[in-house]
Order: sequence, then C-alpha cells, then structure tokens
Amino acid sequence: MDSESEAKANTWSSKAAAKRASTLAKIYPEWRLAPEDIRRASTQRNLTGSFIQQFIAADDAAILSMDSVSVVDAIKQGRLTSLQVTTAFCKAAAVAHQIGNCLHEIFFDEALERAKQLDEYYNKNGTTVGPLHGLPVSLKDQFHVRGQDTTAGYVGWIGSNAGIKDPSQAHQVQSQIATELLSLGAVLYCKTSVPQTLFFIETKNNIIGQTLNPNNQNLSCGGSSGGEGALLALRGSTIGVGTDIGGSVRIPAAFNGVFGIKPTPERFSYRDVAITNPGQTAYKMNIGFLSTSIDGIGLVLKSVLSTKPWLRDPAVVPIPFRQEIVDEYLGRAHDDGTAKQGRTPFKLGVLWTDGVVGPHPPITRSLRMVIDAIRNAGHKVVNWEPPSHRTAKSIHLSIITADGAEDVHKHLNLSGEPMIPELDTRGMRLRPPMGLLKFQDLTRQGLELEEQYLNYWNSTADDDGQIVDAVIMPVAPHAAVIPGKYYHIDYTEALNLMNYSAMVIPVTKADKDLDPFDHGYRPLNTKDEKNWKAYDPDIYDGGPVGVQIVARKFEEEKVWAIAKVVHAALKANEPQSNLKEEGFVVPVHARL
Amino acid sequence: MDSESEAKANTWSSKAAAKRASTLAKIYPEWRLAPEDIRRASTQRNLTGSFIQQFIAADDAAILSMDSVSVVDAIKQGRLTSLQVTTAFCKAAAVAHQIGNCLHEIFFDEALERAKQLDEYYNKNGTTVGPLHGLPVSLKDQFHVRGQDTTAGYVGWIGSNAGIKDPSQAHQVQSQIATELLSLGAVLYCKTSVPQTLFFIETKNNIIGQTLNPNNQNLSCGGSSGGEGALLALRGSTIGVGTDIGGSVRIPAAFNGVFGIKPTPERFSYRDVAITNPGQTAYKMNIGFLSTSIDGIGLVLKSVLSTKPWLRDPAVVPIPFRQEIVDEYLGRAHDDGTAKQGRTPFKLGVLWTDGVVGPHPPITRSLRMVIDAIRNAGHKVVNWEPPSHRTAKSIHLSIITADGAEDVHKHLNLSGEPMIPELDTRGMRLRPPMGLLKFQDLTRQGLELEEQYLNYWNSTADDDGQIVDAVIMPVAPHAAVIPGKYYHIDYTEALNLMNYSAMVIPVTKADKDLDPFDHGYRPLNTKDEKNWKAYDPDIYDGGPVGVQIVARKFEEEKVWAIAKVVHAALKANEPQSNLKEEGFVVPVHARL
Repeated sequence: MDSESEAKANTWSSKAAAKRASTLAKIYPEWRLAPEDIRRASTQRNLTGSFIQQFIAADDAAILSMDSVSVVDAIKQGRLTSLQVTTAFCKAAAVAHQIGNCLHEIFFDEALERAKQLDEYYNKNGTTVGPLHGLPVSLKDQFHVRGQDTTAGYVGWIGSNAGIKDPSQAHQVQSQIATELLSLGAVLYCKTSVPQTLFFIETKNNIIGQTLNPNNQNLSCGGSSGGEGALLALRGSTIGVGTDIGGSVRIPAAFNGVFGIKPTPERFSYRDVAITNPGQTAYKMNIGFLSTSIDGIGLVLKSVLSTKPWLRDPAVVPIPFRQEIVDEYLGRAHDDGTAKQGRTPFKLGVLWTDGVVGPHPPITRSLRMVIDAIRNAGHKVVNWEPPSHRTAKSIHLSIITADGAEDVHKHLNLSGEPMIPELDTRGMRLRPPMGLLKFQDLTRQGLELEEQYLNYWNSTADDDGQIVDAVIMPVAPHAAVIPGKYYHIDYTEALNLMNYSAMVIPVTKADKDLDPFDHGYRPLNTKDEKNWKAYDPDIYDGGPVGVQIVARKFEEEKVWAIAKVVHAALKANEPQSNLKEEGFVVPVHARL
Repeated sequence: MDSESEAKANTWSSKAAAKRASTLAKIYPEWRLAPEDIRRASTQRNLTGSFIQQFIAADDAAILSMDSVSVVDAIKQGRLTSLQVTTAFCKAAAVAHQIGNCLHEIFFDEALERAKQLDEYYNKNGTTVGPLHGLPVSLKDQFHVRGQDTTAGYVGWIGSNAGIKDPSQAHQVQSQIATELLSLGAVLYCKTSVPQTLFFIETKNNIIGQTLNPNNQNLSCGGSSGGEGALLALRGSTIGVGTDIGGSVRIPAAFNGVFGIKPTPERFSYRDVAITNPGQTAYKMNIGFLSTSIDGIGLVLKSVLSTKPWLRDPAVVPIPFRQEIVDEYLGRAHDDGTAKQGRTPFKLGVLWTDGVVGPHPPITRSLRMVIDAIRNAGHKVVNWEPPSHRTAKSIHLSIITADGAEDVHKHLNLSGEPMIPELDTRGMRLRPPMGLLKFQDLTRQGLELEEQYLNYWNSTADDDGQIVDAVIMPVAPHAAVIPGKYYHIDYTEALNLMNYSAMVIPVTKADKDLDPFDHGYRPLNTKDEKNWKAYDPDIYDGGPVGVQIVARKFEEEKVWAIAKVVHAALKANEPQSNLKEEGFVVPVHARL
C-alpha cells in the first residue's frame, strides 16, 4: 500500500466505515435481512410490533414477548434453556440493528457460548447461578466488556476502549456493573448506540450515523442511552444498562415507550465505566436501567444490589435493597394467608409545567391520564411548585461542562473526526476552562438549591401533616422529539442537580386526533414559543410519551414501588390504552 | 469618643480583647477562681484529675466523674435532675476555661433555663424528651447555636456568626446537628476553642490566644477541635461535637486522652455549619464526636441517627444506626437468657509506620500494647502495607487548599487581623487559585487511589479467606505534640481522602522511663529526621497517646464496636494502665 492510500485508509471516515461493516459482519448470514426488507423498513413509520415481528420466527416471538421476570422464571423452571433465550434475543437484536441501526457492538458468539455453559451448570446442579441466570442484558456502549471495543461514540476509540492505544492494555478492563451482571447469571450480547461524546439527547455519531425512533421514524430515539431505548422498543432486549447525567436514561425510556430508572449516583457502581471528565465529581453520572417492564426494573435493582457493589467500589453507598420500603407501599402477603395493605392514600405532587417551557398537548394529556388514574385509585394529588428548575439546570450544566470541553476534544482529536454540529448547544465547543473560584461558587449555589428544594418538599406536610411521597413530572416538553428540536432539557436535568431518584413509565402516544395544536396558547417567552411552534400533530403522531415519577435521594425502592402502583392504576383506568401494540403479539396457545 | 480612639477601639486586637473579657464575664462570680489559683495553674504541668478537682465541690465531682451514659441513666431514673447535672458541667467548664483557656462561647444562662424546663417536662410527664435528656453537650465554635456568636477563630466574625454583618440576620441560623441534639434532649452550654481558619492542628487564634494540653502544658491540645479535646480532658463535658477534614477530631481526641470518631462525611449533617470554602465538595468536612467514654460515642451516634438527619439535609445518606452490625461484633444477649457470641476472631491490620515518618517511641509502644491486647483476646493481627499515604495526603491537601486560600483571606480581611504564622505550612498564604483542569485531574487521581486502597483491603482475604475487619494506626508520629513541631499529618489526613470511618481510643501516656530516645534510629529522610529529633522524653512525659482504629466508608457501627472490644482488651491486659488518673476520683460512698 502506498503512503497516500494508507493515509486515506486511516482517515476517520474510513475507520468508521470499517467499524460499521465489521459490526454488521458479526450478524450470522442466516439472520441477515434481504436488502429490500431493509429498504422497506427505512420508509416505514413504525418498526415495532407487527412490523419487526414479520422477521421473527414464531417460537422466537413467544420468547421475545416475555418480560425479564418471565424469562428468568421460565429458565429456572426448566421451561426454556438459556441457549433458546439467548438465541432469540440475539436474533431480535440482529434484526433490530438492521432495521433500526441501534448497535455499536455485537458479541453473539460469546453470548451463545456462555448460554451453553449456563445450561450445563443448570443441568449439572439443578439450580441457577443467580437471579439473572440466562437473561440477556444489553449495555450502552459506555460500559466496558472484556474483549470488546468501547467507543462512547468516538471514532478514535475504535479498536480499543476508552482510547487506550496500547494493544496489550486495550479490552482488558471490564466495568464493575458488567462483572456484577455476569456474576448474577446474565448473558451479555451487545452494546447499544450512543451519541458522540455522550453529551447529546439524541443518538448520532460519526460511526453509525443516527439511531431513530422505532415507534415513529420521524422522531429521535433520544439519548444518550438512545440505542438502548430503540433496542428495547423493538424487543431486542428486556433490560438495558444506561447512564444519566442530564436525562440520558429517562429520555430514551420515555421516547421509546419503555420503563427506566435513574437512581441516585452513588447507589450503583460506576467503576471502570468510560466517562467524560472523570475528575468532575460535583455532579456524577448515574448508572441506570431501562426495561420493557416495571418488574424488569425491580428485578435488576434487587439483583445487582444483592452483590453488595460497595464492597468493590468505594463510591457506592452501602444500602442494600430495602424490601421493607417496597412492602410499605405495595403491601405484603404473609405466609399465614393474611396480608398487610400498602400505604393508602399516597400523596403525589404534579408538575404541570416548569414555568419556562410549557409541555405540548400530548404531554399535558399524559399528565391528566396519570392524575385521573391516581385519583381513581384513591390517592391524593397536589400541585408541585418547587424552587426554580431553570436555575437548577443552569448550575448543573455549567458545572458538568466547566472544563471547556477539554476532555471531549482530546478524544475527538484522537481520530480528527469533526464534532457533530448539534453539540454546540450543549457547551461542547472548545473554550478556556472555568476558573476554579467560579466553579466552586457554582457548586455552593447548587448545594443551596438542593437544600431549598428539600425544604420545599418537607413543607408539603404543612397543611395536612402528610408529606408528598413522589412527584409526577413531564420528562420533556414534548413526546419523542423531532430531530433537532429538543430545546429544553430542564425537566430532566434539574433533577440531576438534586441527585433524586426518578422512574419513567410509558403512558401514551402522541395522537393527532386527541392532541391538536393549541393556537390559543400564549408562550411565556421566546424559547417557549419556539418549542410550542415545533409541535406538529401529524409528525408527532405515534411518538411515545412517558412521565417521570420522582422521589428523593436514595429512594429507589420507593420510587419503583410507587411507579408500579401508578402503572397499575393507569392500566386499570385505560383498558383501551394505545400502548398495547408495542411488543410482540403471541397467540395465547403459543405462550410459554 | 474622638475619631482616633474610636479607630483604636475598632482595631482587631481591641475587638478580640473585648470578646475575651465578655466571655469571661459570663462566668458567674461565685464560679470565678482566685487570681493566685489561675497563676498557679499556669505553672502546673498537669491540670487534669486531682488538680482541677480541688476547685470542684464533692457533689459536683460525683456527677462529673460519670460518663454520658451514666448521666442520662441517672436523670432518666430520677436520681439526678437535669439542673444538677447542667450546673455541675457549667461549673466544670467555667473552671476548665479559667485554667485551660478552652472556650469561645459561654451560654450558661440559657443552659440552666433549659435544664429547668427539661426537669419540668420530666416531672410532668414522668418521661424524658429523648435519649440525651439533660445531657450537656459542648460544640466546637464552628457550629451555629441560635443567639450565639460563631467565630471559627476569626476576629472578623465576633458579634455575629459566619461573618454575617446584618444585625437582623446574625445569630438566627442554627446548625442542623445542634437542632438535632436539642430535639434529643441535650443541653447546649458552651462552644470550644478552635484555631484561626480551622486549618491548623493546634488551637491558636487572635481572639483567645492558645489552648494548651491539660495533661501536659508543655504540649498542644491539638486541633482543630482542640478546645473540645481540652474541655473533655478536664471533664467539663462528656460529649463534644467536632469536625475533621485532616484529623481535626482524631488528633485532639488522641492528644487529650479521650475517645473520638470521624465518620464518613455524609453520615451526619453538616448543614448550616460554618465552613471554609463551601463550594469545595471533592473532600468534605466530617462531622464527628469526642467523648470521655466509648459508650458516650455509641450513645451520640445512635441518638443522632435516630432523628433521620437525611430528611432535613440532602447531603446525608439515609443509613440508620445498624444495631445488627454492632451485634455481629459484640454479640447479643437474648431475652430468653441465651446469648449470641460476637465474631471471633477479628482480623486486624496494623500500620507500624507509613514509611515516611516513623513514630516516636511512645507511639510504637502504644501500638504494641494494643496488638498484645488484641492477640491475648484471641484475635488475628496482620501487617498493613497499603498504597501510599503520602500520595493520599498530598492529593487531599492540594484539593482542599486549591482556592489559594481565597476564602480564608476574605474572612481574615473582615477585621484586618494578621494570619497566625503557623498557617503558612498548611497552604494558607494567599495565592492564585489552582486551574480547574489541574483540580479535576487531582480529583481523578484521588478517586483512583481510593479504588486502589479498596483493592488492597479486599486482597487481605487472599491468603486465609478472611478480610481485615479494621486497621490499627498511629494518629500522629508523636504523642500530644510540642507546639510548632507537628511536621507530618499524613497519618490522619490520608484517611480523609479515603472517606473512611475512624475511631480514636486512648492507650497510654508518653513516659520518659518507658520511652527513652532511640539514638540508633536511622531516619528515612530529612523530615523523618526532623521529627525524630523533636522527641524529648522529658518534655513529652505525660502526653497522651491514642491509636486510630480504621474501617471503610460508612462503617461507623463496625469501627465503634471493634474499638469497644479493643479498649476492653487493653484494659484487661493493662490493669495498671496509667490512664486511670484523668477523670475525677470520687469516693465509692459518694458515687451516684
């Protein structure tokens, strides 16, 4: 090869193209779709449900229609093997990627080999290795899995992980959470797409291009755990591991019609996870989970905490899964046949708007649906009028980008790839870092705001002696967003300043008939006007809408239990919910 | 007053003098010592025990000889009133201050009034308001008590708190921990001396001058919770509240022959406590406690946590007092008369030296005493060879002083007082702040070192499957130090980087006969040589020596339980311990 062609082969775009091709090449030939099917998918509005199911065999669909808990139960009871389950999810992920462009890494070989070993263990010992035995779990491409690339959306990391260039060192490290999942019996099989730098609320990078929304390809799948959201929407996974520093678990969960939890940062291990600017500790990345079911979230929370992550990661707080908190909210059946009722009524706050950017009609309708359901279930609802979310978001964003994007540009420079233009809006243009005194002053302001927010929360007991248990909030001022039109991230990012625990549950989908454009709306400001005008009922039609349920720091069990109650109330209240189409439809006789 | 004399009256030194006088004036005339007694005290080597007892009436001495638990039990059982107890401790504190110069604030009027109210409550309801009912608790002059000054050693804060100059705002705020103590029934009666800026390991400021060591006035009482240490040594309090960001609870505890605990920072509330540089959150101040007894520490930990501080302070982690961890180590008596044995054997590490500055002979002897006692009690001991404490201390100190002392000088400038010269050594000279990128890089290094330390800790299970439960370490390379000769703070400050929980227990006193100068010692470096040469058996004779018992993050219950076992083993092993002289000696017939 002459030097000119070598130089060409080494350009960032050729590296990215080679990576794309190599990932696709890991899909077994018999799982590849015909080019015309892929073309057909590209013009299809909704890829989920019946569309993707046409590429899935019936016996696989029977498995793929199950949620995480059903899967592990079936394996534990010997009704399914790990290999059957892993094969089905690898196939589904392969199809999802071909039509939905949602994977960065594929390691089906390793997954199928591990599934066989798990089956051998089960056959030999008559028991499982742990509560996730045989369950395929997908990970955002920010987590290191030994032997695999981690790119975090950087071309410069291809062929390695975290930019490590020494071949003897690359691919050696494994994120603690990955090791924990393996110790619980999980099968790791793929890593999902993320935006370049991870600091973007859509999913777009110079390696795979863009991941769109499988429910409505006019829309974004959200970000930064966007590939997870898309893969789950397509039922190529039941549990995905993501991260959230401004909404990166909650936004993709809401935008893809699945469940998601953003715990308090120190609840799960972030050790050995690729991270932008690891020395910025004022506001930490949150490890979170997405799932196709509320019980999938419960399963992964309980299972991972059973490994006592704090014994291996000094950043994790030693709080085991507190079943007693769940029981307090959900009640508990006793062995003698009696039962303890869960707490009734709850008192829930509702944030209809943050007063800066008002939510589009589908969002306001979703809040009404939730509030109606909660009230019908006998719970109390009060308006939530907290300290400024705008200030909270502003402080938080200034702090997490205070290094002047120095770290991000170091990684971009590894390959010379250009920064995607959308990142300008998240403060990712290279500039001098903030001064330390200003940084520390902002941090102080953040702490004070956190205290004020807690004061406000405590004040909700002033009138009736009952404190608000959790708060219902929009995830964003719109359904799954039109690419490029996400102007206001405050609904999620303000809560990162508070370090609160937050669950997202799917509620509805934007509906051009139910959610017409409101011409009478008076925008509060130019940003509000811009967002309001971006609402187009036709384009948004079918875009998923979720809500956040928010509790305080380290209240993951509580927020999960309340989310379970709210979700059940919603289902009871809306038997004709338009959410029913998302998963695989399996005839009753074929169900496992 | 003409302008010249007005200017003079407003100089920092006249303000300080007025403050000193006003504090002394709050001592009731009948509790004032004769000038010749005060002069005699100033030439006395040891002020504790029999010396101070000559100024205390026998019935008061009977109370003052009790520890915290005995005091609250006696009040609960009606054998003492809150007023009797409060009166005795106010008197003792008044005497302690007159001979030991250890108080910044006196509020006996309020304390006695509160004690009366507590007695009324008890008489009316036949019960106590909480587990600390009637117990006088002293606080370092860094905590805000409504209505009182907080100076933190700054002349510029006199007449106010935290430098608040608006008279309508001054004295309004109260530290959450103070409110919690009051809610538990405690009586607050005085605040104790601290060094100017709080960043010094002796106790010296421009307001009261210096607090020396009551056990040996050649020596320092340590810092920054030095006044607490001195007051407890003189038995003017049984429980004091301090803070620790480099050793500021542990050093005064060890230097004054009392018990102390430095919890993990997020275990107790720091809300509304005066603080240097509140926006520096990479390494936080730790709220800690000092006590005259091991059970006093247990009492205050359990009591304060029972108030659920995390409901009012978002920085506190919601971990209640875990009695099950205590029981695991100490065993538990059951109601049916059977008992569960505590864990035996423990496995304890011992750090004989950090490899940079070797401890003086009294310290090495104290470690041997502890190790002999532990081994005799049937426990295992292994050498502790962790990652570099020197690096840990260096990173920690750079981070906590990264603002270039900007905040400190802002407070010094309020009055124009000069900085005490010793503070140069702690990086308190005004200079440009560190750059943010360097700050964040140091923070990253700190996190990595914390992970390496945890890896090392976990590796202690490699040989015999048993992990080290806790580690015995020196608090300093010397006994209570000769003023100006504290060259090496790494033994305590390294653990602030780890955020570990650490207990200090008293072990022995420097003894010129038992601890001769070792002329054969080969110093490791010039700093080691300087420290070694600073050992003078005659001057140090009688200086208290404690050890640290160190466990991991959020292991306060464990480190307390192990400290209790170690302390008991030590007493069993050393019945002739020279610690017996410190408290008040009360004839058996006079005991309550």
